[in-house]
Formats: sequence, C-alpha cells, structure tokens
Amino acid sequence: MKEISGGITAAKGFMAASAAAGIKYQGRTDMALVYSKKPCVSAGTFTSNVVKAACVQWDMEIVKSEEPLQAVVINSGIANACTGKEGFDACEATAKAVEAKLNVPFKGVAVASTGVIGMQLPVDKLVNGVNMMAAKLDESIEAGTDASKAIMTTDTVNKEIAVEFEISGKKVVLGGMSKGSGMIHPNMCTMLAFLGTDLAIEKSLLQEAVSDVVADTFNMITVDGDTSTNDTLICMANGLAENPKITEKGEDYNTFKAALAYVCEALAKKMAADGEGASKLFEATVVNAKSKEDAKTLSRAIVSSNLSKAAIFGCDANFGRFLCAMGYSGADFDQNDVELYFKSVNGTLKVFDKGTPIVFDEDEALKIMKADSVTVYVDMHEGNAEATAWGCDLTYDYVKINADYRS
Amino acid sequence: MKEISGGITAAKGFMAASAAAGIKYQGRTDMALVYSKKPCVSAGTFTSNVVKAACVQWDMEIVKSEEPLQAVVINSGIANACTGKEGFDACEATAKAVEAKLNVPFKGVAVASTGVIGMQLPVDKLVNGVNMMAAKLDESIEAGTDASKAIMTTDTVNKEIAVEFEISGKKVVLGGMSKGSGMIHPNMCTMLAFLGTDLAIEKSLLQEAVSDVVADTFNMITVDGDTSTNDTLICMANGLAENPKITEKGEDYNTFKAALAYVCEALAKKMAADGEGASKLFEATVVNAKSKEDAKTLSRAIVSSNLSKAAIFGCDANFGRFLCAMGYSGADFDQNDVELYFKSVNGTLKVFDKGTPIVFDEDEALKIMKADSVTVYVDMHEGNAEATAWGCDLTYDYVKINADYRS
Repeated sequence: MKEISGGITAAKGFMAASAAAGIKYQGRTDMALVYSKKPCVSAGTFTSNVVKAACVQWDMEIVKSEEPLQAVVINSGIANACTGKEGFDACEATAKAVEAKLNVPFKGVAVASTGVIGMQLPVDKLVNGVNMMAAKLDESIEAGTDASKAIMTTDTVNKEIAVEFEISGKKVVLGGMSKGSGMIHPNMCTMLAFLGTDLAIEKSLLQEAVSDVVADTFNMITVDGDTSTNDTLICMANGLAENPKITEKGEDYNTFKAALAYVCEALAKKMAADGEGASKLFEATVVNAKSKEDAKTLSRAIVSSNLSKAAIFGCDANFGRFLCAMGYSGADFDQNDVELYFKSVNGTLKVFDKGTPIVFDEDEALKIMKADSVTVYVDMHEGNAEATAWGCDLTYDYVKINADYRS
Repeated sequence: MKEISGGITAAKGFMAASAAAGIKYQGRTDMALVYSKKPCVSAGTFTSNVVKAACVQWDMEIVKSEEPLQAVVINSGIANACTGKEGFDACEATAKAVEAKLNVPFKGVAVASTGVIGMQLPVDKLVNGVNMMAAKLDESIEAGTDASKAIMTTDTVNKEIAVEFEISGKKVVLGGMSKGSGMIHPNMCTMLAFLGTDLAIEKSLLQEAVSDVVADTFNMITVDGDTSTNDTLICMANGLAENPKITEKGEDYNTFKAALAYVCEALAKKMAADGEGASKLFEATVVNAKSKEDAKTLSRAIVSSNLSKAAIFGCDANFGRFLCAMGYSGADFDQNDVELYFKSVNGTLKVFDKGTPIVFDEDEALKIMKADSVTVYVDMHEGNAEATAWGCDLTYDYVKINADYRS
C-alpha cells in the first residue's frame, strides 16, 4: 500500500478547519470541521454501549439515512453523553450553524464529541466555533493535520494517515484521522475516527466494507476495557476520483477494502500505542485457534488483562498471567495444546510448551520485553483461525491521568 | 448474627497448623494445614477459568466424590498452575504425606496453592512442611489465625471470621479464612477460602447452600477483572455440633444458609477492601433492575471499570464513568430511567436524575468521596431486582505491585 502525506484532507474535495472555541480547554484548539465540496455517501460504526452520547444518536440517524453527508463538526473537552434532551438540542444547533454558513442541509451534518461525560455543551461557544471554522476551510494537508490536533483529549500525539491506490485505472485517495487514548475498548471506542475518500462507491457496499474492517481493526484494540459512550467512525466518499462507481463486490471493491483495512489498522495501532499513560504497544497474536471468534476472544483477553498489562510495563515475562487471561476469556481450549512465545525486535522466546512451562533465560526474556513493542504469540494447535489484538501497558501514569481527569 | 472470636478452628473438632517451608518466600510461614478430628462432608466452588491449576483439578474430584474430606493443605508463593503432569503429581505427593502422618486416606485430603503461575512446586519442601505441621496441629484460635496468615500473598491483612447460631436447640459454629488481593474477579477468585463448621448436614444440601451463597458474595467482588486459575472455596462440615442432621430445606437449612451468607459476605468484603494497592472499599448497589441477573451485571460492571476505580481513587464524583460502565455491561436499560447517587458515612448525593446530570456541590461530593468506603447507588426504576458488588480503587500501588510481582 502506498502511503502519502496528509490525513482527512488528502482525498480530492475534502477541506478542514479548526478553532479554539473554549468549550472546556483553554489555550488550545478544541473544534474541527471537515467538509467535502461534493455531497458524500457515508458509512459509520458506533459504540455498542447502551448509554449512547447524544451525538452518537444524531449520527446514527444520518448514516442510516439515504441523505448525503457533507460535513462533520467535532469538539473535544465535553462528550455530550448523559445529557438528556439538552444534549440532543446541542447537536441540532451545531448542525444548523453549519447549514447557515455553508448552505448544507443540517441533516447532512454529523457531529461528534469527546471528553467528560455528564456535562452540557455550551451551545453559544459551539456555534461561534462553527462560524469561525466555516470562514477558513482549507484543503491543505496542514488544515487536516490541525483538525487532527483539535480533536485530541489525553492523546499525546495526533493520529492521521493517507494512502493512494488505483481503481480501474483511476487514482483514488483514502485519508483519515482518529483520536483516543482512554476509555478505549471499542466495540465500536472514546475513539473518534473520520475517513475521507474520493472513491465512487455505493452506500451499502461502503457500509459493508467499513463494518468488516472495523471488526478486525478498531474493535481489536483496548486501553482499559471501558467501552465508551461516544465511539464513532464515519467514512465519507465523494466520488471525485471519477472511478467507475463500485456497485458490486469484485476486484475494485477488494482493492478499496484492502486500503481501508490498511488505514484502519494503522490508526488503531497508533491509538493503542498512545493509550493513556502507555509506555509501549502490546500486541497479541493467536494462531491455529478453533474459530475466528475464539482467536479474537483470546487475543483480546490477553491485551485486556490488567495483570498482563502490568507485567508488560514491568518487562516481566510472567507468562502465567497471559494463559490465565486466555482461560477466563470464554473461549474453550485445552492448555495442553498451547504454545506461548514472547516476541519483539530483540528476539523470540518460547516459554510454554503444550501444558508445561519452559525454563528460560531471564536475561534474554528481559531483553525481548524491553522493546517499545512486545508481542505475545500463541499457537493453539487446535484449528486454523487467527487474530491479532492491540493494547498497551498499564502504568502509574494511567492511574494518575484518570484519578484526576475531570478537574 | 453473633460473631465470635476465631476463624477456621472456631468450630468443634477443627485443628490447624502452619509452617515456614521455604516454598518461595523466605522468613515467613507459607504453608497451612487444616484438619478435622472427624471426617467431613464437603462442598466447594472452583474457578471457571478453563486454565485450572493442578490443585483445583485435584480438589474438584474430591469434592465431587462421596468420600469424606478430612484435611486441607495450602501453600502460598507458587500457584501450581500451568504445570502439566508434574503439577498434578505434586498434589498427590502432598496428600500422601498427610496420609502417612495422620492416617487419613489421601483421597480425603484437599490441596490448594496460590502465587506465581507457571512454576513447579518443590515437592520435597512441601512434604517436609506437611511433616512439620502434622506434628503441631492445634485447635486454638491462635493456630487458626496463624494458618490464615500463612496463606497470604500480596494480602496486607489476614482474613478470618466465625459466627455462632442455633439449629434445633444445638449451638453450631461456622468459621472460615480466606486470602486474595490480586487476580481477583472470582467466577468462583486467586482467592482461596476455607470454611469449617460442626454442623451435621447432607452433602448435597451443603453444596447447594455453598453454591447459592458464593454466587451472591465471593462472585460479586473484583479487584482487577482477572479471574484466577486457582480460585477455590471449600466448606467442611463434621457434624460435631450434634444437631439433628439437616436433610431437607426448611428452617434449619435457612438458619445455616444465613450464617454462611454472613461469613462469606464478610470475607468477600475484607478481600475487596484489601485488593492489591487499594486505598478504599468501593461498593455498587443497583436496585429496581429488570432482573437479578441485570442487577448483578450492572453492579459488577461499575466496580470492575478501571476508569470508575481510578475516579474512586481520585475522590472524583465523575459519574459519567459509572454510567458508561453500566452501558457496556451487556444489560439493557434506558438511561432516562436511571438515578445515580454517591453515598458514604459522610452523606448521600444525587448526581444523575433520569437522563439528566444534576449540578452538584463539588465540596460536598469531595467530602463523600473521601471516606474509606464509597458506595455508588443506582436506582434503575425498571423492575424490582437488586444486587451489590464490591471492589476497590485503582492506585499507583496496584501497578507497582503487579509490574514487579514475580521477581
């Protein structure tokens, strides 16, 4: 896959702007506006939390409808979750501010929020922010990058990526940005992700590709096991690449889906590695499991376990904790079939061999565990399905950040 | 319920001893032996982790059989989990050492281990420990207390309790001890609990009472969401109280079950409050839920959430995190029905009223949250079922303990 510079503004026709609206944070940008010159077909995935933020409820309606989507307004600082009717009214007021400035029907404007749950958004500041941003929409790479910075909360780095690929001879671009660092256990996370492509594709196929890819990428990361009220991924496709519109599965669809998977996996791994307080990326790959579902359950249980995460932080090859997490995951297996390895750029070490612990060299283990990215690799020897999940270590800083996030 | 002094040796006929066997720890006791002068009917509950420790497999056979149970040998330091056939052989060798010294059939000897997973037990030291303990079995309160100290790992306090009640005019005693501080998310925890009573009761009724009570007590606590490979609760009843044997449900059964519930809840709360690194007990009570199952799911989700736990540590009335946890728990409900309160000895504060956040006094909230025990009280207004779950806060010390536990 060919990576190119940029993010949400990389594809033809996509513009962005950001503003310091003073929603909650001071002295930084906290709103972003993404706009496509041409109305888009859209697809999305949203949190499975039954306590859905007002903005999630708003966006689900939009993405489900056949109406085109043309703009997304995002704010950081306040999540607009657990806010009742007042929260929903804030979504509508925001969308209507976009309609007034950009002549886009307000039902074609998605809104997304991230931050503290249970606080009301200051509508006047939101509207003021929309007005500022509408006046400075820009299709430069920098405008996209600035937008990706405005949506950060406890993130320490902004997250964006863009790729270029060919569909029936036409150059197509897919760009995106995401944020998320805590309350990350997406089932569809407080992750927000926005993807823009100039591909021409039918809405139902776009949704199918998005749903499939999210299941294996964003839904396979975890920071703290807490599935947010606000998780939102929206993909907009405006057709400006002028490829023959994708209306059925086939080579073109597969090419796009591969690009989508590349972009989503890259953004998902960036989020896991930048998990609140994280000092390293923690990956679990399970191979030869009985079923895909088992492989996913097992790999996710390993990276979700607080004890596994603390061991990764301590660079401790305490493999029993990983086996323990597999054991309570809900997947059925026999420990006597299982081989477990630690892997990193510094080497590979087998520590458990079909029911029996292997006496290993602690110095070698420490060297492997000290890398910036550590993989637990498990061969189940019970089938041929595999999956990978991504998380991060559990550190003092995670506790510090979250014992004192709201104030 | 009348609490009396003592623990596992409080009931008639129960003796205990402990020893410093040097299994892994140095300079402290690390083995305990519990012995009943009279063979006992037994009941037990064990981890639901599919990776079961060798000792769990050993005990499940014993408790399932109709053979009487007369002794339990417990070691701390090494969990004898993920140890293959060698681990199972260690269980048998331990039981046979008891047989040799105390003339108890080795199939009547349960064994339990807690500590590091994936290390083999030193059988010679175990057998030596059994020999030392067999020679100094004692029915004093102190011997029971010493046993409860020998089985501690990262626990900071020993946990024991005893109660006295009357069954058909006869005084009956139920005593017990438990340990557990990390890898605590019992589904039937690395908790170990041993209960001894002089009650006369039929085995099947003892098992039914134990299973029912564990579901509402030990299985409702969590420290870190990690369900151990070693969770074991064994209850022994030797009949020395000389009550008319309980052979059916009725007043006597209910009296015993109430005593059992009292003891199990007290031990479970002691474990939650002494969770690894914990600075306070964190309780969640959910009332008026649609079903008992929903009430349990919701209350457990609240105390299990890392973000909720960190907020409790930070004394932050960040109620959105608690609602978020309820939302992803799997229970279905409408946030517009829900009222949420914080409670402690310092007062009660309503913070969320049927879908809408309440603006509250932060000083008052801080005063409530600063107590040693904080309760999140949720009224669902959707039914009439209720449940309570217990956990603890997530602190720097939890990370410290677990980033460096094995070495």
